[in-house]
Amino acid sequence: MNNNNSRNSVLGIDPGTNATGFGIVEMCGNGLKAKLFGVIRSRPNTSLADRLLRIFSELTSIIQAERPSFCAIETVFNAKNPRSSLVLGHARGVSMLAARNQGLDLFEYSPLEVKKAVVGYGRAQKCQVQDMVRVILGIRERVPQDAADALAVAICHLNSCNYSAF
Amino acid sequence: MNNNNSRNSVLGIDPGTNATGFGIVEMCGNGLKAKLFGVIRSRPNTSLADRLLRIFSELTSIIQAERPSFCAIETVFNAKNPRSSLVLGHARGVSMLAARNQGLDLFEYSPLEVKKAVVGYGRAQKCQVQDMVRVILGIRERVPQDAADALAVAICHLNSCNYSAF
Repeated sequence: MNNNNSRNSVLGIDPGTNATGFGIVEMCGNGLKAKLFGVIRSRPNTSLADRLLRIFSELTSIIQAERPSFCAIETVFNAKNPRSSLVLGHARGVSMLAARNQGLDLFEYSPLEVKKAVVGYGRAQKCQVQDMVRVILGIRERVPQDAADALAVAICHLNSCNYSAF
Repeated sequence: MNNNNSRNSVLGIDPGTNATGFGIVEMCGNGLKAKLFGVIRSRPNTSLADRLLRIFSELTSIIQAERPSFCAIETVFNAKNPRSSLVLGHARGVSMLAARNQGLDLFEYSPLEVKKAVVGYGRAQKCQVQDMVRVILGIRERVPQDAADALAVAICHLNSCNYSAF
């Protein structure tokens, strides 16, 4: 087993048309560390098509540079209304495409599974997830909410595999 | 003005995760003709990510081969519920991305505008749109519903431009 091998790393994505969080988590000894994280933000007044192109291009560049082994993304059950579901679907579809187009297998986890994996119970608040992500990954600086959500789903995937896949 | 120039052609897309219709309509003298149309169908039991990859790859190949000038797609207001909106959004996002990624400008039209442009009034039935698309474009063979919807939005764009853009 080679802990520095990219086979040990997972790209988590938290898609959105205004802000798409991303984070790569990799094994480091018996623990986990964040290799990279950030948020792809759209400029105001940008068309939906150009927002989607930016999400796709940025995620493609990240995958090509970092070569993660897998991609993890949250399932969506609780979208508020058809309109917001439709818009979120655009960003989620393009994010999934970016990963699959680079040959990554995708794994989906419910928000409940992600919260359980990171905080220990499924009803955790967003800020608790954000704090626990920093603790688990030993990050000292502030992590934007969208990036924390992306890192959380990546942690969830590594936990659910119980590292046995590596 | 050169009617055979690809600047006169519009790619219409009717996205869906099971079936994505496409059609290229171009000016031909004072009329319109279908250069190409069809449906990208997903195999049963294919994952959503692989369906999206297929839609993206096929549309990209079509655009690269045919070099249409513009892309037209329907707006979506009437999705039945958040779940179906979310799934449709994935296919629509990937379709828009395929066009924009190849440098095409996108134009969106409401279902009402498309029906008005093709049949003459906004409350037309689907089969009336299907029939009128064949009449307008002089197509003798059967046109699948999804391809007819894609051709219809392309016709709508050419009509709304009143050909003046060419």
